Amino acid sequence: MSEQTAVVLVKKEHLEFQKRTIPEVQDPHYVKVRVMATGICGSDIHFYKEGAIGPFIVKSPMIMGHESSGVVVEVGDAVTMVQIGDHVAIEPGVPSRYSEETKAGHYNLCPHMRFAATPPVDGTLVEYYVSPEDFVHKVPKSLAFEEVALMEPLSVAVHANKLAGTKFNDTVIIMGAGPIGLVCGQVAKSFGATTILYVDVNDFKLDVAQKSFGATHILNSKKLKSDVPVEVAIKKLLGNTKIDTVLECTGAAPCVDAGLKALSGGGTFIVVGMGANSIPVPMNLISMGELTIKGCFRYCQGDYKDAIGLVSQGKVNLKELISAKYKFSDAIKAYEAQLDPSVEKRIKTIILGPE
Amino acid sequence: MSEQTAVVLVKKEHLEFQKRTIPEVQDPHYVKVRVMATGICGSDIHFYKEGAIGPFIVKSPMIMGHESSGVVVEVGDAVTMVQIGDHVAIEPGVPSRYSEETKAGHYNLCPHMRFAATPPVDGTLVEYYVSPEDFVHKVPKSLAFEEVALMEPLSVAVHANKLAGTKFNDTVIIMGAGPIGLVCGQVAKSFGATTILYVDVNDFKLDVAQKSFGATHILNSKKLKSDVPVEVAIKKLLGNTKIDTVLECTGAAPCVDAGLKALSGGGTFIVVGMGANSIPVPMNLISMGELTIKGCFRYCQGDYKDAIGLVSQGKVNLKELISAKYKFSDAIKAYEAQLDPSVEKRIKTIILGPE
Amino acid sequence: MSEQTAVVLVKKEHLEFQKRTIPEVQDPHYVKVRVMATGICGSDIHFYKEGAIGPFIVKSPMIMGHESSGVVVEVGDAVTMVQIGDHVAIEPGVPSRYSEETKAGHYNLCPHMRFAATPPVDGTLVEYYVSPEDFVHKVPKSLAFEEVALMEPLSVAVHANKLAGTKFNDTVIIMGAGPIGLVCGQVAKSFGATTILYVDVNDFKLDVAQKSFGATHILNSKKLKSDVPVEVAIKKLLGNTKIDTVLECTGAAPCVDAGLKALSGGGTFIVVGMGANSIPVPMNLISMGELTIKGCFRYCQGDYKDAIGLVSQGKVNLKELISAKYKFSDAIKAYEAQLDPSVEKRIKTIILGPE
Amino acid sequence: MSEQTAVVLVKKEHLEFQKRTIPEVQDPHYVKVRVMATGICGSDIHFYKEGAIGPFIVKSPMIMGHESSGVVVEVGDAVTMVQIGDHVAIEPGVPSRYSEETKAGHYNLCPHMRFAATPPVDGTLVEYYVSPEDFVHKVPKSLAFEEVALMEPLSVAVHANKLAGTKFNDTVIIMGAGPIGLVCGQVAKSFGATTILYVDVNDFKLDVAQKSFGATHILNSKKLKSDVPVEVAIKKLLGNTKIDTVLECTGAAPCVDAGLKALSGGGTFIVVGMGANSIPVPMNLISMGELTIKGCFRYCQGDYKDAIGLVSQGKVNLKELISAKYKFSDAIKAYEAQLDPSVEKRIKTIILGPE
Repeated sequence: MSEQTAVVLVKKEHLEFQKRTIPEVQDPHYVKVRVMATGICGSDIHFYKEGAIGPFIVKSPMIMGHESSGVVVEVGDAVTMVQIGDHVAIEPGVPSRYSEETKAGHYNLCPHMRFAATPPVDGTLVEYYVSPEDFVHKVPKSLAFEEVALMEPLSVAVHANKLAGTKFNDTVIIMGAGPIGLVCGQVAKSFGATTILYVDVNDFKLDVAQKSFGATHILNSKKLKSDVPVEVAIKKLLGNTKIDTVLECTGAAPCVDAGLKALSGGGTFIVVGMGANSIPVPMNLISMGELTIKGCFRYCQGDYKDAIGLVSQGKVNLKELISAKYKFSDAIKAYEAQLDPSVEKRIKTIILGPE
Repeated sequence: MSEQTAVVLVKKEHLEFQKRTIPEVQDPHYVKVRVMATGICGSDIHFYKEGAIGPFIVKSPMIMGHESSGVVVEVGDAVTMVQIGDHVAIEPGVPSRYSEETKAGHYNLCPHMRFAATPPVDGTLVEYYVSPEDFVHKVPKSLAFEEVALMEPLSVAVHANKLAGTKFNDTVIIMGAGPIGLVCGQVAKSFGATTILYVDVNDFKLDVAQKSFGATHILNSKKLKSDVPVEVAIKKLLGNTKIDTVLECTGAAPCVDAGLKALSGGGTFIVVGMGANSIPVPMNLISMGELTIKGCFRYCQGDYKDAIGLVSQGKVNLKELISAKYKFSDAIKAYEAQLDPSVEKRIKTIILGPE
Repeated sequence: MSEQTAVVLVKKEHLEFQKRTIPEVQDPHYVKVRVMATGICGSDIHFYKEGAIGPFIVKSPMIMGHESSGVVVEVGDAVTMVQIGDHVAIEPGVPSRYSEETKAGHYNLCPHMRFAATPPVDGTLVEYYVSPEDFVHKVPKSLAFEEVALMEPLSVAVHANKLAGTKFNDTVIIMGAGPIGLVCGQVAKSFGATTILYVDVNDFKLDVAQKSFGATHILNSKKLKSDVPVEVAIKKLLGNTKIDTVLECTGAAPCVDAGLKALSGGGTFIVVGMGANSIPVPMNLISMGELTIKGCFRYCQGDYKDAIGLVSQGKVNLKELISAKYKFSDAIKAYEAQLDPSVEKRIKTIILGPE
Repeated sequence: MSEQTAVVLVKKEHLEFQKRTIPEVQDPHYVKVRVMATGICGSDIHFYKEGAIGPFIVKSPMIMGHESSGVVVEVGDAVTMVQIGDHVAIEPGVPSRYSEETKAGHYNLCPHMRFAATPPVDGTLVEYYVSPEDFVHKVPKSLAFEEVALMEPLSVAVHANKLAGTKFNDTVIIMGAGPIGLVCGQVAKSFGATTILYVDVNDFKLDVAQKSFGATHILNSKKLKSDVPVEVAIKKLLGNTKIDTVLECTGAAPCVDAGLKALSGGGTFIVVGMGANSIPVPMNLISMGELTIKGCFRYCQGDYKDAIGLVSQGKVNLKELISAKYKFSDAIKAYEAQLDPSVEKRIKTIILGPE
């Protein structure tokens, strides 16, 4: 039984390379994938720095990584959806097939979900990873593996925009121009939104939003005069336009507040970013405007397919998200680099390999 | 030009009877109604005590009253929906016919809405009131006028349950067993909900909920041990049941918090009650459970019709809400009585007449 | 390896008792059920008489039966949803866990569905039947097994009413007062419909509809004068009422036509019954009234749960459907009896046992 | 009181120019528009040739025209939505403001609708036309009046795609590449559809579809071998793709049949075109695939706004529809030309002026 190298979070602030047994394809509906590229996500950093996110606590060593692409190298006897040699995006969360939620079309809410690199489930920063056939998604070979790894955050953006019901002629505000915000905005555009305003405090990110992720308007909220509420600046920038949707991708209380106050009557606010457990909302405005707030959690059936469609058809350019690449053997350095608060021009880091 | 008596809020804490000109039916689609009964609503008390609710400020004398029933006494030439002699519930808010919101099916969100007894629009506590024909709703003559007046809060409950999508077999929590909460619970039952839990701090109201408004479970949250969070008590009381919906009818921050924490994944929280402008919500739970929060504001097309259907078919007994009745000549006393905090057994007060 | 007796359709018009091996619980999520009662469905009769329904052709001997109840007698190691001794309704169709349709919330549309007694899949008219744990549904022991068997057609009615969006105050027309029509009407009532008109040609069935299945109006279309179209008679009977929904349970062209012509603008027509492959519809009426026609096929996630809720709460009385009961040893006689066209007072036949 | 010239359908096959009084703006919410261009629609030709469409019968002389653009020349005192000098698309159907349908968001279903050039209501082929302010829609002055006239059919296409729920990555089949089919396909593309197959019998129209209206695939059904059903050819052309939607724009029975047979499980079929009153549908397929058929009638709130957005943003090029233009003084010739069956390269005819 041969071994492979894994990037393991031993405990808070302690990553190391460890040897692990290469997993076997034991179920006829499973496949084995050679991992080729993996993105680093905000949640990864959170686990690395804090050892926990909300109820998920790292209690024993856990392999990192959940945004990965690869090549299918082995398939179980019953597999029909992919073939050996296919390039695939790995969908990192596998629900129970027996839960109500899964069969009702919401497997992202399945209480038995096993999600890569969410304790205690191991992640994808290894050489070989096994998955059910329907949780690896074939992609065109013309796409780079580093793009394909980013189908994961793109699927979040697809899911968020489906929850929002983004449609032709909509006006959408993106709070936060980080990786998720950027893909949310570009998906909104692809779904038909006409006016897309990004709010952030970082000019580099706002520039990227404008250059490659569909911004029709940008607002650096740090540069507003202290007596101008963000929602007032938003409304002024957009003129008389009805504001249909806010995709909140920061988890920050002031963004939640401003976003809800900016929305027009009947509008929808999607909670994409996570942050403080308790955040105040302008409840009377919600009531009088019949606003809708919807939580958004990961992705479910069809979201990966649409993410792949968006990239294949050239509607989303994931390469523009990538600001740094590391070799697998430098994976720990890649994580450490994320902790440096002085870097202003970072969006997304990719770990290539394992070699 | 003859005169009538009106109950006028001159300013905060100052009500008086004043003479007003009886209005004429000038539009061929309008009707004149002899008012027969009027309920006192929480918002009326708010205007009386504070002179304002949020953005609505009493700046000049305003006739009170917006929950009224009456008899049609005159109809314009084009009227086809009601006839002289019909008993009607008066729907107190008339939107613009030209606004996007009205034509899109959401006239409750029309920015040009003129709503009775919301400043600066006069209310219904007069002898004769004119209204467009489609904003008075014919009721069976077998119903008492005092019941018909309460079609207004019942329409709020109908609207809330439609927003919630209440359906067969649902489990619904009602936060607050006041008049709106009670009708919300009974409408939930009529829409098919199987399990209906009321949470309140007043045993009298919880008893009424159980006796006449569909409660299958009640919880007096004041009687919980201090270390038992309300949501824990709710879940314990309901066992394993999936909690589909919370209808929040208090506007109180602890109820909002407990209600959201009690909801099952994918559940819906309707903001029926108004309260503090800013209320904290458990945002990560909203996100991870893909909870939906929807503001609920008044009612729109079809809600009065369904309210009348519920009462006519005996599914809602509005009489059980009425804990006090006053003559029109005692209307000011009726308002003053609402301010007495020592009354524990008050649900709804009705002003009969004008005589 | 012990044997059991099965009721087998050898070919068209040829049923016999055959011995079959008792199946084992091989998957840890599976259970074994002792079958206690089984209903005979229209589709069973169709297979018996014709040897086929549409694309489903009996090419080799097939065990009959798909409306069954029983007792759990054995559970796999991973089973958590039911226990030995539980009384259960058996849901007869098991989809692939890997198909898009299943994970999207529509397992009834899964192309890999294996449905009991639909060729070539064996049915439930045996002593012991194995099923995944989530396709047997626990019921209160207070219910008779013969009622529990009929959860299957009741689930069809639940599904049909969900597709229709039946809600409070709706007016619903049921075309055909057979078993499916009757439960459709009663479910419509339980979902809030106020006015329920049954159309049939058999007075006995219309009487049952009125006595036990929620009819507020009935219409024997055979008794109309020849120059009165059925839709005209329907509209006359219902006065001015808006007709929201037609649940078509006959598959007969004249019923489809009359139902669509009776519907009000914006109304919904649900195709519950199967019949001729090609049926004419009044297309310009569909267009101008923006009518919706929806096909309805079996049931999916949550439908059995609601069916059980309806019976447990006393909202549907399935016993009233049962017009004949046979012992398992008389099962073939039970089928033969269905072919007698002279019986006018038959609704549903139950086979009890195997003893 | 001055006069204007109108194009009047006196009776079947008899058009003439007549003098009519120029209408006054009598309602404060109305405006007067100088008509600048008018399209000829299939329904116009139908009235001209047959004197009737279904229940609408030309019983007295009626002014033709309902696809018009113009310039606002006078506004009532209460008008706020447009100003004198604005270029506008005229929405030709004005509903009652009091009907349930209008207030419920479906004014296209209002039974009191007054629709231009639908008997007995006069149309827009005149110099001056009056309309409520909210039924003329301001457009950018950069658009040609002949394009603006075609906002009417484009709004039909917007409405059809909204009913279909067309969204990113959908596969849509357009039956019929006439004016409505062409804009339906292009709107589908703008709403996100990825694969758009047109079926027609006219190569010129299919070429236009491919060149300017979003076709990714075309199929000339007249050129199929006689033993190849159209639905089989469609499926072959599209490979394994799930077919989400059919927009049926012909009203022809074979197209209805093939479209429904081509649809994938859960798919949606929109009845855009009108044709025979009775058309057969494959009912068992509808049932087993849970297909949805929805009638589509004109347009309602928001559709014109989106149509104008599509053209303003360059997503739809209406000029490509126009195959012939006539002066107003040649309007009768324009109609006569429509009757010539030998013209193969005609899509849309525009009448410019009145001069």
